[in-house]
Amino acid sequence: MYPQLLAHIKRYVALTPQEEQLLCDKIELQKFRKKEFLLEPGKLCKGNYFVLTGLVRQYHITNKLAEQIVQFGLESWWIADQESLVNHQPSNYYIQAIEASEILLLTESNRIILSKEVPVLESYFRVMMQKSFVAMFRRVNFMLNLTDEERYNFFAKSYPEFMQRVPQYMLASYLGFTPQFLSRIRAKKA
Amino acid sequence: MYPQLLAHIKRYVALTPQEEQLLCDKIELQKFRKKEFLLEPGKLCKGNYFVLTGLVRQYHITNKLAEQIVQFGLESWWIADQESLVNHQPSNYYIQAIEASEILLLTESNRIILSKEVPVLESYFRVMMQKSFVAMFRRVNFMLNLTDEERYNFFAKSYPEFMQRVPQYMLASYLGFTPQFLSRIRAKKA
Repeated sequence: MYPQLLAHIKRYVALTPQEEQLLCDKIELQKFRKKEFLLEPGKLCKGNYFVLTGLVRQYHITNKLAEQIVQFGLESWWIADQESLVNHQPSNYYIQAIEASEILLLTESNRIILSKEVPVLESYFRVMMQKSFVAMFRRVNFMLNLTDEERYNFFAKSYPEFMQRVPQYMLASYLGFTPQFLSRIRAKKA
Repeated sequence: MYPQLLAHIKRYVALTPQEEQLLCDKIELQKFRKKEFLLEPGKLCKGNYFVLTGLVRQYHITNKLAEQIVQFGLESWWIADQESLVNHQPSNYYIQAIEASEILLLTESNRIILSKEVPVLESYFRVMMQKSFVAMFRRVNFMLNLTDEERYNFFAKSYPEFMQRVPQYMLASYLGFTPQFLSRIRAKKA
């Protein structure tokens, strides 16, 4: 049984003990070393990953051969390439462990089986997608309306612990500015 | 009965005739004049809107008192302020008819009732949210990796009919550049 995952799900929907068992039977625990890949370009994303411990990032390589980070996955976050999942197409992305990580995989085929056996999971995943959409929507707004410095300040204020854990160059990539620019902002704050 | 909505749903999930009836009984047909508002800041978003005919936009007023368009809704698209819906909080957005529009409203309370009576609708709305997330995710990527001109060209190629319908200043706002910049790009193409 995976109490951390069950606790997360039960914040949104009720599960009977039997449903909890059905769910946990369909989950695979996977361990990744630092820098190991959960997903690589050209492969189908296997399913949705729930981070128990550790930290992962999703990124791709741009035309200019830079790493562009598009998402992070922290403890009790789900991460996946939804485009690969929904369109059944090979991914354009890497998902990689930044730290040694313990991760639960719910494969897409198991999610489909489970959605019949435990229908409330459809509601749970609908809410997860809705919240992910809202987060991405806010990010578009920040990119359209905030300066780089305002975006940094907002992020630093909202996720102080996260700022400590993530290497600076990854944070710069995620926020869409150069490591040099990030250094200047941080020097100004200090 | 609303065949356009039913056709859209049946691309993703199967509905019995009885379920179709249950669904249509819970839908409200609303007509909006050009420039009329479906949603205004400070109000709760009532539910999800499905555009039958016409065109709507979602926008907010920035600190610099400019209109920032964040989404459009075309025929057979859903539009809503998901943040207001998922967090039960007043909206920060306007949703406004750009053209006279016929729109179906599925209120949030009716959606919750329906999700019990017609459980496949949870799957349908999960997929809708997943596709919306993917679209927003791609938009973040374009903003991080494409120049303004590349973004314009991609949009013009992907949605030629849409480009004809939407006033230029709205398109500029959505793409995040000034009307002057948009005029220059278009002059270059012509």
